[in-house]
Amino acid sequence: MRDIVTAGILVIGDEILSGRTKDKNIGFIAEYLTNIAIDLREVRVVADDEDAIIEALDALRNRYTYVFTTGGIGPTHDDITADCVAKAFGVGIGYHPEVLARFRERFSEAELNEARLRMTRIPDGAELIQSATIIAPGFKIGNVIVMAGVPSIMQAMMDIVAPKLKSGVKMLSESIQANAREGDIGGPLRAIAEAHPDTMIGSYPFLDEERKPNTNLVVRSRDSEKLQQAMGAVKQMLAELNLTK
Amino acid sequence: MRDIVTAGILVIGDEILSGRTKDKNIGFIAEYLTNIAIDLREVRVVADDEDAIIEALDALRNRYTYVFTTGGIGPTHDDITADCVAKAFGVGIGYHPEVLARFRERFSEAELNEARLRMTRIPDGAELIQSATIIAPGFKIGNVIVMAGVPSIMQAMMDIVAPKLKSGVKMLSESIQANAREGDIGGPLRAIAEAHPDTMIGSYPFLDEERKPNTNLVVRSRDSEKLQQAMGAVKQMLAELNLTK
Repeated sequence: MRDIVTAGILVIGDEILSGRTKDKNIGFIAEYLTNIAIDLREVRVVADDEDAIIEALDALRNRYTYVFTTGGIGPTHDDITADCVAKAFGVGIGYHPEVLARFRERFSEAELNEARLRMTRIPDGAELIQSATIIAPGFKIGNVIVMAGVPSIMQAMMDIVAPKLKSGVKMLSESIQANAREGDIGGPLRAIAEAHPDTMIGSYPFLDEERKPNTNLVVRSRDSEKLQQAMGAVKQMLAELNLTK
Repeated sequence: MRDIVTAGILVIGDEILSGRTKDKNIGFIAEYLTNIAIDLREVRVVADDEDAIIEALDALRNRYTYVFTTGGIGPTHDDITADCVAKAFGVGIGYHPEVLARFRERFSEAELNEARLRMTRIPDGAELIQSATIIAPGFKIGNVIVMAGVPSIMQAMMDIVAPKLKSGVKMLSESIQANAREGDIGGPLRAIAEAHPDTMIGSYPFLDEERKPNTNLVVRSRDSEKLQQAMGAVKQMLAELNLTK
């Protein structure tokens, strides 16, 4: 059995903490990682602040197989992610010759100002995450994957980097609608959860189309047989309570 | 001058980390706190796991004026937030007489099962966050505000708790569209940021309706005069570069 591969996400940006920009990256990366059998364990959002970024990055990279960062790799003074990552890893940072060459092809002499050149600064030893349509590349250094904050660019970067990552044993998942209020089934559901320790059973209330309370039950496990056993117990419980349609 | 009041958010739930549920609470709370002059400094998302919840809660509550948690206060076995908060504060937890009385009015004897009773468990000494339309109350203990994960309920709880919170000096904010690519203005913008240390200047690229790269510039400060000075410098820079419409 392969190891469990874990991950953390570090979202970097004042604009997320002020509420001005609503993050769309956490949900996307979370779903992506589930699909490639990587367990997302923790997310942090911090400001464009060197100390805050480095502290969170060190906490996450020491704890999980991978850390995915978003934001702070643009051309302006508040884009400090690459420098913080270099500092956290204790490596130098400079204009990356390959990125610089591509920038010289792409931009005129006048356009290639200090701000744009800033986007070619990559920590020493990092591997680029780039494509023909990505201007400022992301990069991977050690177990840290540094990506853009703009969702469309971040998503392109995920597609590039994903095939290079270790993946674990895929978490399998099945769900069923309980046709009950959460509180009606919490007791028997707890008993099923306790009797099936290698599964995770989640209970998620929602309001149906008629604004009536209902509940989705989700059973997850890396073991298909144990998943089926637990889901069987859930279905039996719902049948006994006359809750399935 | 009043102190700066800070906050952290702790989002609790496996369903956010698996990507099954897309969080809508971080952005809402972030914007809400900005409007009531509380500085959101950090967000963490953790699983329905006691150790993870307590560790993150302790880190945030020791660091910021307030911590807002969402999720994990429902009736099922994976709803462990109230117990974790009690444990973090080193206090007991039990059926809260007032909540219990309301549940007895609201639910029949048959409905008032162990799962539902679970929602009446509140850490000792906590203050309830409740209203006629909220079934399972949130609560405030010390500097920690515990709220539901369901967005509509969480939002109602924010409205109840907000008037009771200290607020700081409001962060003022003005924005202007640069009509330029970020890289065109990064240099002069950095100079303005350095010349106006009591302001924060953010640069946010976007694609306009014709998919042309453009940039929003946001100047923030607690001091109205300093904000105006920095925004004046930004406008002058854009005028000199012939970028304003």
